[in-house]
Formats: sequence, structure tokens, C-alpha cells
Amino acid sequence: MPSSSVQIVAVVGCGTIGTSWAACFARAGLTVRLFDADPARPAFARAEAIEMLRASGDVTGGDVTALQARIQLADTLEQAVQNADYVQENAREQAGEKTALFEQLDALAPPDCILASSSSAILPSSFLAGLPGRSRCLVAHPFNPPHLIPVVELVAPAWVAPEILARTATFLESIGQLPIYVAREVDGYVGNRLQVAVVNEAMALIDRGVVSPGDLDRCVTQGLGLRWAFIGPFETMDLNAPDGFAGYVGRFGDSYQQLGRTLALDSPWSQEAIDRVAAWRRSELPLADLKQRQAWRDDLILRIRALVANADAVTSSSR
Amino acid sequence: MPSSSVQIVAVVGCGTIGTSWAACFARAGLTVRLFDADPARPAFARAEAIEMLRASGDVTGGDVTALQARIQLADTLEQAVQNADYVQENAREQAGEKTALFEQLDALAPPDCILASSSSAILPSSFLAGLPGRSRCLVAHPFNPPHLIPVVELVAPAWVAPEILARTATFLESIGQLPIYVAREVDGYVGNRLQVAVVNEAMALIDRGVVSPGDLDRCVTQGLGLRWAFIGPFETMDLNAPDGFAGYVGRFGDSYQQLGRTLALDSPWSQEAIDRVAAWRRSELPLADLKQRQAWRDDLILRIRALVANADAVTSSSR
Repeated sequence: MPSSSVQIVAVVGCGTIGTSWAACFARAGLTVRLFDADPARPAFARAEAIEMLRASGDVTGGDVTALQARIQLADTLEQAVQNADYVQENAREQAGEKTALFEQLDALAPPDCILASSSSAILPSSFLAGLPGRSRCLVAHPFNPPHLIPVVELVAPAWVAPEILARTATFLESIGQLPIYVAREVDGYVGNRLQVAVVNEAMALIDRGVVSPGDLDRCVTQGLGLRWAFIGPFETMDLNAPDGFAGYVGRFGDSYQQLGRTLALDSPWSQEAIDRVAAWRRSELPLADLKQRQAWRDDLILRIRALVANADAVTSSSR
Repeated sequence: MPSSSVQIVAVVGCGTIGTSWAACFARAGLTVRLFDADPARPAFARAEAIEMLRASGDVTGGDVTALQARIQLADTLEQAVQNADYVQENAREQAGEKTALFEQLDALAPPDCILASSSSAILPSSFLAGLPGRSRCLVAHPFNPPHLIPVVELVAPAWVAPEILARTATFLESIGQLPIYVAREVDGYVGNRLQVAVVNEAMALIDRGVVSPGDLDRCVTQGLGLRWAFIGPFETMDLNAPDGFAGYVGRFGDSYQQLGRTLALDSPWSQEAIDRVAAWRRSELPLADLKQRQAWRDDLILRIRALVANADAVTSSSR
């Protein structure tokens, strides 16, 4: 893994995402400072982050004392960012709130400290563009939860110093995340756009009575998704033709584009379709069992990652 | 597994899909008859099907003789469907060809034989509606390749006898496939519509210079796809909120619908975008290594299926 000069990280905003970020940073051996507008929140988040690492097998009993010491609770924002090398902000998705917070962060944090936002919806230009120190401010949008899902989308408008972007990517890689570059501001960046494409078409299919919610989910888990866990949509196409992607597009590109024109991803979701999916979910899984099923999901994510990582290692060494 | 009365299956059209279907049927211990308009093709397909089963670990050396006997080569269509219980048609996606073929099949096959088509693009109403025996004719569209990917989309217009649809589903389940019901004829059925939603948005993102092809694929394999291998899009949403799907939609439904309106899945693919993806693929994988990578993919599909099936068994037994 590439080395990184980051030693002290401030997590600002300790909801679900902030807590999982804290787990990522602490797992990597960094000093983590937790701050939240709600003063009761950081202590709770620390306990939760340690519990996350215990559940994912990253920490055993003996390490807990060290983790407790490494994850520090800050009473003020000033205290949180003092001497910090990297700040990960996870406040609510509310433009005014984010702007005010980043003004404070920019004023309080050391000049070479990276200021990264987990913002998923508010675009960087709408809350970072006016800051005096905007050259060190960017969006680092994780998937949920970052301690299990590696991808982090880096959105760095032209005002961000290339050195800051490079340092952020190196740092995230050094703690086991996978940064990807979003070169232009677009709503939803990349991941949420792809997810919304699937979900909106899925809702339209339920609404039109084409398929049941259970069959739709199974079509993904027993079909498309079996490949997407380790080869992306482009490599999937590449491997489906003896002459690779170019040949595949030559044969099927027109059909894809034709079919694309029949999708109606802008149709509103009917309440009836929402109710049908919700009723199916509750018939499959009572709300009381949701937490147990989440633990099962988290465990499977880790096991699939391990399986694929191991297979990749074998493939590269045999080439 | 549910029992099924199917003993003799005819595979009509022995390209890639037909060959993989032959492997599915032979693996289940059925008698398989291969027919193709090209008289040289069935012998080749038999060898290839046995090789598929060897690669997937379904067959070891000793079984090959039995398989050879079970997979029979038919010289004529009449010979292929004689006494057959089930026919899987895999001719080219060409409406006139399919119509002519089904007229023959309907005339030659025993009256209670199911006639299923692998058609992915041509809708059943355009080539099955006019047949005297249309009540036993439906589409059973597999993913590629069916001997590795379980989902089969069943498209049975109103003219299909409910007993035929039920018998087809039972049969496919008995050989380890996963039938899902497509209740209305729509272009691309379910799976291809979801795939096209992702791929068309992906191509638009490349075209607009938002992300590189490699980062886009990684966004799926290290992000979205890690979940979709075992929980579908609806269950993913359900598990991402303490109050389940209904609560999730209450909080994020509007954002999804808003974002959906910004996707442009009907924009044509530019040659530049196609070239950029193709160039990335070839820089990652020379064409000469494609076959080896396909084998790696097939192996991983099987191992992820085994991992998830095993975890599911544990979950159900612990509840």
C-alpha cells in the first residue's frame, strides 16, 4: 500500500456514515477525533465503531483498549481539527449547514489539512466554491458503510490543488478504500446514478405489473449480480464476445440503444408499487429480524470480497 | 427439488446458448437430443457441453461415457423431437426463421411436449401467437450461460395453458435453474432492461467525460455489485433503513425520482466513448487471454453461488 502522511483524522458529524468512517480510520491505526453538534453523539459513535470492527473481525478483545485510546472525543470543532491532517465531514445533506460548517473548518484546521466531505447529494460547487481555502476542499463520497464497501468517489472541481487530490487518493488507498475519480460534477456522481437507473426501472416494472418484487430481486441475485460482484458492466460485455468489447458492441450496441429508448426512468413511483414491494419485504423478513439480516449481509460482503481478492491474486500470479 | 415428468429433451439450435442448455439438461441426467440446421454442429456441441461440465466440476472422467450416451445427435428435426417431453429452441433472433421453426416443431412434437424458446429479443406474440398448438409454446429466456447462471425468464402470454407454464417452471427448478415470471410482454423482459439501464447510463458517463471506464467498472465491483450478488435492489433498500423499505422510500424516494429524471438513457453511444472503453479493456487484458479470463469468471460465479447458498442455509437454520 502507498504510504501516506496522514496521522490524525477528524470525523465531523457522527451519524451512521461518520461512525463507519471512524471505524475505517481507527482500523488503520490512526488517531481519530470525533465531533458532533450533539455532544452526546461522539461517545456513542466510538462504542459503535468498535462494535463494527468487532463484527467485521478486524478487532479482537485485546485490541479494544488501544482502540478506545485512539478514538478521541472532541468537545469543540476547534479541538477536533487541532493538528489534524485530514477531516471527513458527515453533516446533514443541507446546503446552508454544510457551507457554515466548512467556513468554520477552513478557518480552524491547519493550512495543509485536507477537508473532505461525505456529501452525496449537494454538489461541491454549491458549498465549497466560495471558501478562502477551497484548494484543499473536496468531496470524498463513500458507499454505505465505508468500513465494508471500499469505493469512495472523489469529486474535485478545478479549484482543488492536484496535490490535494493525489494526497487524498493515496491516503484512502493506504487505509484500504478504493478511490475513483469523478471528473465532472453531475447529480448523484457515478454510483448513485447507476443505482438509480436500476431502481427506477425496477419500480416501473413493478408498477406496470411486469414482474413481482421477489422475482425482480432474484433476477439480480441469481443473474446480473453474480457477475457484477467481480466484473463491472464493461468487462461483462468484453468477456461475452470472442473479439471483446468492440465486437460485442458491433453486434449488440444497436439493441442496447434501442432498448434504452424504451426505458422510462423518469416515471413517478406509484404508491401502489411502493406498497407492493414493502409488503413483499415484510412477508420475507419481519422488521424485528432486520438487524440480524444486516449482520448477515455485512458478513457476506466481507466473505465475497475475500473470495474475489484471493482469486485475483491467483490469476495475476499465474500470468 | 420438485419432481418433473420430463425425461427426454430436444435442444434445437446448438450455438453457445444451446450448448450450455445441453449441459444443463445432461447434468440433470436427462436424455438430450441435439439438432442444428448445420449438420456438423451437434457433434461439436456435445463435446463442448461435456467440456463445460468438466470445467464447472460437475463431471469427472468416469462420467464422460455416460454423458456421451445421454447426449444424442439428431439428423433431422423429426428425430430430435420424437417422444420428447420438452424442446428448447435456440435459433437466430430472426422473426421469420423462428416462426418457420415453431411451425415445424408444433407439427412434429408429441401433443403434450412443451415448446420453449430462448428468444431474448423477439417477443412471443410475434412468432408464437399464430400456431395451432400455441397453448404449449412459451419463451424461457436464459441468462448466458445457463449452466452457470440460474435465472430463466418465463414469458407466457394469455394463450399459454397455465398447466404448461407450471410444468415448465417445475421442470426448470428440478434441474437447478431459477424461473422468474414475466407477466407482460415488454422489450428486453426484466434482466436485459435492468442491464441496459446500467450500461446506457455508463456509456453516457464515459461520453461526457465524468469517469474513466476502469473507475466505472470498479465502482460496480467494489461498490454496488458487492451487494447485488446476494441481495437484490429492493432488499438493498430495505436493509438500509431501520424501518425497512417503506421508511427508506419515505426518506429517499423523492431523490431517486429526481435523479432518475436527469439520466439520459436514450442518448446514442458515441464512437469515441466506445473506443475509450475498448482501449481500456485491451490495455487490461490482451485478446489472447480472453478465454483464460472467461474461465476465471465462470469459476468465480460458481464459488460465489456456493458461498451465498451456504450462508443462506445457515441463516434459515438459525431462525
